[in-house]
Amino acid sequence: MQALKEDYRYVKTLVPVETALELMKSRVSRIAEKMRVPLWEGQGLVLAEPVRAPHDMPPRPKSAYDGYAVRSEETPGRFRIREKITIGEVPDFTLGPGEAAYVTTGSYIPGGADAVVPEEKARVEGDYVIIDYKVGKWDYVDPAGVYARKGDILIGEGRILTPFDIVGLLDAGVTEAVVYRPLRIGIVQTGNELFPAFTPDQAERRIREGGVIATTGDFVAWFAQSFLPYTTIIDTVALPDDLNAVAWYVERLLDYADLVLVTGGTGPSEIDLFYRLPGKLGGELVFRGLRVIGGKPTSGMVVEGKPVIGLSGYPLSALHGFIRLVYPLTAYMANLKSQPALPVYKAILASNLKVKRARPIKAKLYYKDGGLVAEPLRHELQKSSALVALAYADAVILAEEGEHEPGEEVLVLAYRLTRRLLRALD
Amino acid sequence: MQALKEDYRYVKTLVPVETALELMKSRVSRIAEKMRVPLWEGQGLVLAEPVRAPHDMPPRPKSAYDGYAVRSEETPGRFRIREKITIGEVPDFTLGPGEAAYVTTGSYIPGGADAVVPEEKARVEGDYVIIDYKVGKWDYVDPAGVYARKGDILIGEGRILTPFDIVGLLDAGVTEAVVYRPLRIGIVQTGNELFPAFTPDQAERRIREGGVIATTGDFVAWFAQSFLPYTTIIDTVALPDDLNAVAWYVERLLDYADLVLVTGGTGPSEIDLFYRLPGKLGGELVFRGLRVIGGKPTSGMVVEGKPVIGLSGYPLSALHGFIRLVYPLTAYMANLKSQPALPVYKAILASNLKVKRARPIKAKLYYKDGGLVAEPLRHELQKSSALVALAYADAVILAEEGEHEPGEEVLVLAYRLTRRLLRALD
Repeated sequence: MQALKEDYRYVKTLVPVETALELMKSRVSRIAEKMRVPLWEGQGLVLAEPVRAPHDMPPRPKSAYDGYAVRSEETPGRFRIREKITIGEVPDFTLGPGEAAYVTTGSYIPGGADAVVPEEKARVEGDYVIIDYKVGKWDYVDPAGVYARKGDILIGEGRILTPFDIVGLLDAGVTEAVVYRPLRIGIVQTGNELFPAFTPDQAERRIREGGVIATTGDFVAWFAQSFLPYTTIIDTVALPDDLNAVAWYVERLLDYADLVLVTGGTGPSEIDLFYRLPGKLGGELVFRGLRVIGGKPTSGMVVEGKPVIGLSGYPLSALHGFIRLVYPLTAYMANLKSQPALPVYKAILASNLKVKRARPIKAKLYYKDGGLVAEPLRHELQKSSALVALAYADAVILAEEGEHEPGEEVLVLAYRLTRRLLRALD
Repeated sequence: MQALKEDYRYVKTLVPVETALELMKSRVSRIAEKMRVPLWEGQGLVLAEPVRAPHDMPPRPKSAYDGYAVRSEETPGRFRIREKITIGEVPDFTLGPGEAAYVTTGSYIPGGADAVVPEEKARVEGDYVIIDYKVGKWDYVDPAGVYARKGDILIGEGRILTPFDIVGLLDAGVTEAVVYRPLRIGIVQTGNELFPAFTPDQAERRIREGGVIATTGDFVAWFAQSFLPYTTIIDTVALPDDLNAVAWYVERLLDYADLVLVTGGTGPSEIDLFYRLPGKLGGELVFRGLRVIGGKPTSGMVVEGKPVIGLSGYPLSALHGFIRLVYPLTAYMANLKSQPALPVYKAILASNLKVKRARPIKAKLYYKDGGLVAEPLRHELQKSSALVALAYADAVILAEEGEHEPGEEVLVLAYRLTRRLLRALD
């Protein structure tokens, strides 16, 4: 066992992200438990069964405007206003010849009617309404079944239930769905230097003594909660560089978590512990070292079908490893066929960039000639340890390996947009 | 007063969004109240004062790797390992000639040292370490003050405090910030037809009777909570089409809310109430009707410096009015100089699009030749009432007025990305 541990100590070959991902996927279990939930409670979760239309949509013809329901074949003409129907009421009559009914947007139209004339285009004279043009069939009307037929699949299995879907499904009268339960993630931050953020009076002293405020776990947890809604963070804890304590904690977390992230302790030094965890927990080390910069020591092991991923102790490097490797792995485990949108945009590179291995590059964003431009911060602020520079930047370029010229398109993870950019939406 | 109400009833001229926005901005108050908060509690809020560096960053030279701290001028050479320093400790000695110290990533290096040699590049022989190449000054070291000098502005007033900033500021030992209090939004949904989503057994019956599950308020509230973190939704209520009840409720909301949204009731019909609210509340009607489709009846009034905005009763149309008008208005009221990222992307249009006035177009998204492509759903599914089609789509094109050709770039509000798209991040 000792030999094995030493084998794991140094990062020898950097594994391409794609390879690491395939190695992990072939060894981990996917979520199988399903649950039936009211739609808003299922927001962000993955559909385990397709959702079908419970009836034709709309179930009968509906008005799409405030005005007069008529038989289009009778226009132009003069019509007796038989009744007023407002949304929420169901007309129980059929229009007779020469009759119209006042309807409001969204109300069912009476039998016989096949068009609605906006009230601005009609003229009322006492109990009559005059329509002086030829109205088309189904003008300002949503015919029965035009949006969906009973039994149609409205949204397929494996898709995330987004608020947009919920709005659409509730409108169709679907109130529940069958989803996979959320993927449970536990986060263990390690490091003797860590101290919590809630001690402002002590921060100055602790930092002078070499302390570091623990942020990596909260940062990754925030990202997962914001952009991977099919996951739930069940725990975020900080522990010292103590192999026994960390192994004890991870083992207990694995009773409930589907995936555990260990931040820090991924280096090769004597106080680093990730390379000793597989021996301690009886797990299999699957890969050690990713071919990226900022997250290079990212490592993966599997314990009884559950991944334990070692991420850098530096917040941005940890997030980089998370986005490259953990994000697609969670998507696989959660049975996803589509992902929620990440705040990742295309931008034009403002200066050239030599990228030895895929890495996050801190950048300013600005808006020029209708396009988003990413300008990398100066070289020395790109170090993993230059965290304060995140406050100077607006985004992180997810730079790919290779030489990139000014003018080239790159993907940026944007956390701040400038006022100018907003105007593109005005 | 009666005459005035009738004046307001019909939408006569559609006001360009920019004009409506300027009219509203010139009449409303901005948030002035400030509060000092721990950073994580200030997440998403707007900085009311710039944040300055409390000390040089780093305060003294730090190692950026696990290895041996040395005086670079003495390399190559053989060095006595004087001590081991791990992160969280502060070395209280200065390296003598021919001495090295073992350091781990992030630990302060001893006095005299100006470089770190990665342990993989060094050879240990008993108490000595052999370094066989010339090491550069500050190699694998972050010199004192390299990231920030004491008193430097780290992040300016008017910026949103994002999790990325928080990570950077906490690393610099900043634990609190002065922010503006959140902008308070109240939402009043109106409509006799509305019923809540939590009655699955009754939904089928109520829909056949002309009922509609209330979603517009929750949908807009979700958007604000997700993408406008400097706002807080203080209330979301549904009321019938009863002018007195709605006016009574809005008046009380305005005691605390900075902005009130009224959804539905923005049409010109007899049961519509927004056009009668200014008279009832003693407010000023500022504009009536926006030059957009999907949100056309959007209207704005001001009561004692506070905006009351009427949005469409249709969820997607309400969201469109919100994104075009309310989003920039809240940014102004909240003193923002930058915005958080919205999930809005550039995509290539797959088919031609004639757009009479700016409107949301439901679209499928797919990935082709490295780019995102938006393909509008068929014409009849584009109606405001075709809500179920949101489940068929992946995004909403924020289409601008004019004729758009296939291949043209458009902005899309994406709520679902395909599996293929994700691979762009692998």
